[in-house]
Amino acid sequence: MTKTYDIAAFRALIGAIKCEDNPVLVKQKSRDFYWYSPVLKRELEHVTADLVVSPRSEAEVATVLAAAHKLGVPVTPRGAGTGNYGQAMPLTGGVLLNLIEMNTILDISPGRVVAEPGALLIDIDKAAAPSGQELRMFPSTRATASIGGFIAGGSGGVGSITWGGLRDFGNVLRLRVMTMESEPRTLELTGADLHKAVHAYGTNGVITEVEAPLTAAYDWVDVIVGFDSFDAAAAYGYALGQQDGILKKLVTVVAAPAPSRYFLRHRAIIPEGKSVVLAMVAPHALDALEAFTRPVRGAGILFVSSRAAKDTLTGLPPNYELAWNHTTLRALRVDPAITYLQIRYPEDRGLSLISRIHEIFRDEVLGHLEIIRFNGRVGFAGLPMVRFSTEERLQEIMNEHEAMGAMVFNPHRYTLEEGGMKQTDATQLAFKRETDPQGLLNPGKMIAWEDPAFDYSAGKNFLFPGLEARALAAQV
Amino acid sequence: MTKTYDIAAFRALIGAIKCEDNPVLVKQKSRDFYWYSPVLKRELEHVTADLVVSPRSEAEVATVLAAAHKLGVPVTPRGAGTGNYGQAMPLTGGVLLNLIEMNTILDISPGRVVAEPGALLIDIDKAAAPSGQELRMFPSTRATASIGGFIAGGSGGVGSITWGGLRDFGNVLRLRVMTMESEPRTLELTGADLHKAVHAYGTNGVITEVEAPLTAAYDWVDVIVGFDSFDAAAAYGYALGQQDGILKKLVTVVAAPAPSRYFLRHRAIIPEGKSVVLAMVAPHALDALEAFTRPVRGAGILFVSSRAAKDTLTGLPPNYELAWNHTTLRALRVDPAITYLQIRYPEDRGLSLISRIHEIFRDEVLGHLEIIRFNGRVGFAGLPMVRFSTEERLQEIMNEHEAMGAMVFNPHRYTLEEGGMKQTDATQLAFKRETDPQGLLNPGKMIAWEDPAFDYSAGKNFLFPGLEARALAAQV
Repeated sequence: MTKTYDIAAFRALIGAIKCEDNPVLVKQKSRDFYWYSPVLKRELEHVTADLVVSPRSEAEVATVLAAAHKLGVPVTPRGAGTGNYGQAMPLTGGVLLNLIEMNTILDISPGRVVAEPGALLIDIDKAAAPSGQELRMFPSTRATASIGGFIAGGSGGVGSITWGGLRDFGNVLRLRVMTMESEPRTLELTGADLHKAVHAYGTNGVITEVEAPLTAAYDWVDVIVGFDSFDAAAAYGYALGQQDGILKKLVTVVAAPAPSRYFLRHRAIIPEGKSVVLAMVAPHALDALEAFTRPVRGAGILFVSSRAAKDTLTGLPPNYELAWNHTTLRALRVDPAITYLQIRYPEDRGLSLISRIHEIFRDEVLGHLEIIRFNGRVGFAGLPMVRFSTEERLQEIMNEHEAMGAMVFNPHRYTLEEGGMKQTDATQLAFKRETDPQGLLNPGKMIAWEDPAFDYSAGKNFLFPGLEARALAAQV
Repeated sequence: MTKTYDIAAFRALIGAIKCEDNPVLVKQKSRDFYWYSPVLKRELEHVTADLVVSPRSEAEVATVLAAAHKLGVPVTPRGAGTGNYGQAMPLTGGVLLNLIEMNTILDISPGRVVAEPGALLIDIDKAAAPSGQELRMFPSTRATASIGGFIAGGSGGVGSITWGGLRDFGNVLRLRVMTMESEPRTLELTGADLHKAVHAYGTNGVITEVEAPLTAAYDWVDVIVGFDSFDAAAAYGYALGQQDGILKKLVTVVAAPAPSRYFLRHRAIIPEGKSVVLAMVAPHALDALEAFTRPVRGAGILFVSSRAAKDTLTGLPPNYELAWNHTTLRALRVDPAITYLQIRYPEDRGLSLISRIHEIFRDEVLGHLEIIRFNGRVGFAGLPMVRFSTEERLQEIMNEHEAMGAMVFNPHRYTLEEGGMKQTDATQLAFKRETDPQGLLNPGKMIAWEDPAFDYSAGKNFLFPGLEARALAAQV
């Protein structure tokens, strides 16, 4: 065994704070959607915590962190576990700090919500509705994901077509973060300091309170537009994204045959062979959307939720549950050999590059684009569905994307750096030095902390020793 | 006299509908801010209607139009007269159709307002406030301008940094337009049909009802950021415009010495020599704006309205009354030799071109940029202040701008085409054929109607014969 910490002593120190040690339940809470990736599935399948601790208040979080700090117990904070890269999986065991029961929505005012980290995105939207407001953005897991988990583990999603990403100034207003020290401190992060903890996987502090911007809520209308080619759908999606006066929450492009094959409940709506654009527009933007669409050659509106019969709508998932990571999820359910990539295409020649890549890989890499704002411009994020054969081939496909000028954010890696810009985030590293001097928070996720000399250019994966040791221990 | 119509007979036909024939009052209502332009001042100074008619209902408008049609009386529709190019000036006399008393706000619902054309923009915002809403955009004359006049004579303004222009799909939802026929019809325009009547100066129908989109209202915070150079201010304004997560309503760049010299009430706030960026941001975006600004070299926040002392705020105009056409207005009040241009700089090399132009013309053309969204991208509209010497020199300055690759929308012309794209708008022309077969609505403003053979490439002004005849008549 590699555990050098005393879980029993830890339990004694935290007193009556809610714990769970049933191995089945602990393992369940130690997972996320890492199995989207056959690579992570192989690497992380054995991962489990020793104990799930579910604090109900900031004071309880402090008690947990102080005890863990004292005894050297690793702590991995977790929201709803809807991530895809093992963000909240406890690579080297220890305590899974389940924050989902800290879910109070503390305050809603014009333009702002203050909530505990475990508040579900959908519950925040429900609470904000009486004031005519809702969150600017949410992942396709809106119905189950928490605000703290989204900010710690996500990067954007539905709403990013209007507002950009979570890391853009203004899309998170304030975070209250607790340090992993003998006497945990709470720090209030605002402005540029937010970059220290947003999308840091909880490696450098435990988020105990979130202040996020709200925007006007609408009864968003789902529209599905069909095309005979992926290129035509992509061009339309890009052009729609650039319509400043058409208020949208989502513009997604999915290549045939995925829509008719994988969107099972939409089979009566989407004919075979159609590539589609999935949009969410405000009710008062629908007429403008239709006027914009009418002259587009080959564009046919297949579905408008606000005009659909009640029967048609029964059991039909909303467009956002066909988009972002739900596109892959639906594909996976039909065809377990599917996995995915995360790509950013250069904005200036995005359409032509997307077309070339589509031409080269055909059915092996099925096109899926999310049209989003990025640095003030409408651009392309790609979440193409890959027919998986071997890890070597998967890597080859990624290499070819990069050789052609597309950026790959590798979703088959559990570290911040490899899934991101493949370089040290000096701000997050410095903050971890301050907040978690012993390196007990979510170990193994920040390469810059674990192995400052790691050479990204060598083309090798980072292998976290704690994960390997734990895997060996699991085999014993 | 060139009048071939019988005003007395017209009055008899319209019965009790409110009229004004006092020449002083009629001339007053026959004007707008055309005197911003020394060229238009010379050309249009004599312009006046014969009669101002102020209908109170659509039925009265129909009576007026039918009578005018029968007797061949020209009719020029007018809102509040806050235009700058004689949009609503009756070039060849006749009836000034004053719609400002048709000002009922008919309905406010989520995302929408329905109003009569004379409703003031500020009154719509007041009426929408209880529902947490406001108009997407308004001109700097918000306090006095009407919704119908804005849509018929404007092109965008405060809010265009987020929503683009009035002609973009979705920024006007519906117009009800009355035709100039023996039996006037009302037409409902939506979708692409809106392009027929938006920014048509009322040449092809009288707007009797407007449906416009609403957005979330905030207590916008005015921020003024100072810089030592215009180039630095422009670069900052452009970068701020591209911050997707910072909710803004205005980003204006004004070159020194204009701010300290012309913004008289801001003298205690803006030091001499400072170029400024004037921004309006949502209260919950202020922290992000400051975080974004802090690392910008040479940027100094001079003013934040939400933190200013009550004394400071007393009598201080809001930022939007320093912006758009109010910038020129304030300059004119201090220095009557100032006039202006309307420029669009290419987005891809905007900053360098703006810098070069600034370098070449110096104090003769004082930089003023409005950062706006245009076709999905953040770009530069210019309203530079020009120290006027002669009309020839003014033309030379415009020619030099065009030679360098900047587009000029000439604000010294009273026609739609010369102030715009210098080409026939086939949609608007076709609509005029349908709605105003006798050419009685706002004569002289649409070259395509008056002189289909007009050659824009010849570099000569269009001279409306009706205006010339009227000018001669006025001298008699």
